[in-house]
Amino acid sequence: MHDTTADPWSATALDVQRRLSSLRESGEPGAVATVVGVEGSAYRRPGAKMVLTPEGDHLGGITAGCLEGPVVDLAGRVFESGEPVIETFDLMDDDEWGLGLGCNGVIDVLVEPVDDSWDPVLAALDAGESVATVTAVDGDAPLGARAVVRTDGSVTAPSDRTGLPDAVVEAIRDEAVDCAETGTWIARTVTTDEGDVTVFVDGVEPAPEMLVFGGQPDTGPVSSLARHVGFAVTVATARGGHADPERFPAADEVVSLRPADLDEHVDERTAVVLMSHNKLDDELALASVLETDAPYVGLMGPRERFEQIREELAADGVEFTDEQLARVATPVGLDVGGGEPVQIALSIVSEALAVLNGRGGGRLRDREGAIHGEREIIVDD
Amino acid sequence: MHDTTADPWSATALDVQRRLSSLRESGEPGAVATVVGVEGSAYRRPGAKMVLTPEGDHLGGITAGCLEGPVVDLAGRVFESGEPVIETFDLMDDDEWGLGLGCNGVIDVLVEPVDDSWDPVLAALDAGESVATVTAVDGDAPLGARAVVRTDGSVTAPSDRTGLPDAVVEAIRDEAVDCAETGTWIARTVTTDEGDVTVFVDGVEPAPEMLVFGGQPDTGPVSSLARHVGFAVTVATARGGHADPERFPAADEVVSLRPADLDEHVDERTAVVLMSHNKLDDELALASVLETDAPYVGLMGPRERFEQIREELAADGVEFTDEQLARVATPVGLDVGGGEPVQIALSIVSEALAVLNGRGGGRLRDREGAIHGEREIIVDD
Repeated sequence: MHDTTADPWSATALDVQRRLSSLRESGEPGAVATVVGVEGSAYRRPGAKMVLTPEGDHLGGITAGCLEGPVVDLAGRVFESGEPVIETFDLMDDDEWGLGLGCNGVIDVLVEPVDDSWDPVLAALDAGESVATVTAVDGDAPLGARAVVRTDGSVTAPSDRTGLPDAVVEAIRDEAVDCAETGTWIARTVTTDEGDVTVFVDGVEPAPEMLVFGGQPDTGPVSSLARHVGFAVTVATARGGHADPERFPAADEVVSLRPADLDEHVDERTAVVLMSHNKLDDELALASVLETDAPYVGLMGPRERFEQIREELAADGVEFTDEQLARVATPVGLDVGGGEPVQIALSIVSEALAVLNGRGGGRLRDREGAIHGEREIIVDD
Repeated sequence: MHDTTADPWSATALDVQRRLSSLRESGEPGAVATVVGVEGSAYRRPGAKMVLTPEGDHLGGITAGCLEGPVVDLAGRVFESGEPVIETFDLMDDDEWGLGLGCNGVIDVLVEPVDDSWDPVLAALDAGESVATVTAVDGDAPLGARAVVRTDGSVTAPSDRTGLPDAVVEAIRDEAVDCAETGTWIARTVTTDEGDVTVFVDGVEPAPEMLVFGGQPDTGPVSSLARHVGFAVTVATARGGHADPERFPAADEVVSLRPADLDEHVDERTAVVLMSHNKLDDELALASVLETDAPYVGLMGPRERFEQIREELAADGVEFTDEQLARVATPVGLDVGGGEPVQIALSIVSEALAVLNGRGGGRLRDREGAIHGEREIIVDD
């Protein structure tokens, strides 16, 4: 289902991350294009990335399609020189009968080589940790000069390219930690004795995770759709004989777990979906994952089934707090109708994504205020 | 993306319909399993179908996976005898440590050969029309005796199997027309001079359609996800040079259309998504499709862009009625967050499905009443 060869625009941040890892492992050349500035209404926001190879392949889309040609050309310059480049594209929709890009925005794109400045980023993501890159995009430092800042404030400088001047790193470090922790970005101009340096700070979070508990075939559509929209997916089956990766080819991992041990695979980034179709298994699994920080615990089945499970757990002395109950989604899913397995999967995966993004899943036309997230800090001073 | 070979549970009603058509065209043997009765809470509702072949392949899932083995066995009996069979499965969850099917329901499954009784059904669906099958499932008529009733009340009897007695057809015809028109089902026992016959009336509607207007690459994730969840998808590009089917492999059709001619491809079953990224093209397209019965018209872009479009159309003397405005979804999509192209596609396709199903998005846990549709009439007398 998730075939990024057929459609590079369907690639997610997780696909981009994995391609970067494989390029670093193989030592093959690659380039990364990142949106580092937007004025007006653009298709993707700052931080959106695309990976390119010298053969002209690309993974990910940073616009609706209008800029990928020019960005491939920019990448050609990067492959030739080994140096980062930056370009501003003005997509203001003043030529309605022309190319008609219609993005109504001005977009700055940084294109840079896949070099060792990415290693601490990939290492952090692999360890499930957030990180921020701080990159010079203008002023009195070489374009692309970089530092990588972890959430504990520690900093790594690259060897393959110029590091960011220490004074700039020190001035921006606290804000970079904040960007890493919140997955947001900022652009800042820092004044030092050596001059002014404008940096783009890009908070990068690990991909969201989904743990699907259930070995029945209806686990398949849920796990493949979740993977398709950017979750790293683990399928957990309660019964050893079912833990066959070939049955869930879209899953990143298929494990066999006792329901009471589900908590070991869950953290504050994990959406959990309980669909074992076995009431006792779901009951044990629910009690286990609600002890973790999982922000979303979807439970398949009607409301009455959940009430039965609660009563049975209460009889065993297990009572849930309001905070725990608030994380339980049952009946699971957004209210989109349609009873086919893929439609049920759509409903579940949409709800999990909404909850992880702090959204409510209703219609955007009925939402007040901006449709992009509140988590984004847009500052340019 | 939509690979039903890899995962038969991801097959939709549209896939089942197409497989039936190809079996009828090739003359190869096949069987159809249909849920014809449910007591309690089952995974799929009456009318859910699965197509099986003598090789043991199946497309579609009528349970979460617990019954497919037994249904494959039932189909074996059908291939041997050429006669329909029916079986009742009791999935009541009283054996929590056993197989643990957990469906908490009793489910009746009819398995019947793919014979000429399907031809009028497939012909109607191909013509974009609804239809109802009326099938004897108990009583004083051969099991599987059938009539097909169209929305104009005309009836076709099969040659390959026994037709339903005329008196039964007459008694049920009006209700069958109603089931066809609403895509619902009923079970009824009809008393005639020849005895009592219980029939299952199965209203079958053509698959929902999505018309995606836009030739940019971001059309790809939308069209492939829409196809994956059961829409028949047409991609319309305004610029002739882009109407290349290879660019949108998931689409059923790729056409090049002037935006003002979009109405020709739209009826009351079509969800329209306008994402040309060209304001004037979207404007002409919007004016065109709002003259049709399209129940959903999603318009990509911020609210202000729609206001500009309205003002420009008003200056040309085009004013929308409240009824027309109510069908416009802008900003398009459900509020799930995430700015990647596949996540935008998820948001759009979820909203289109919800609107076509008369749902509001939002979380099922916050919905009052039953989570299954109001359109379903459950009568068994």
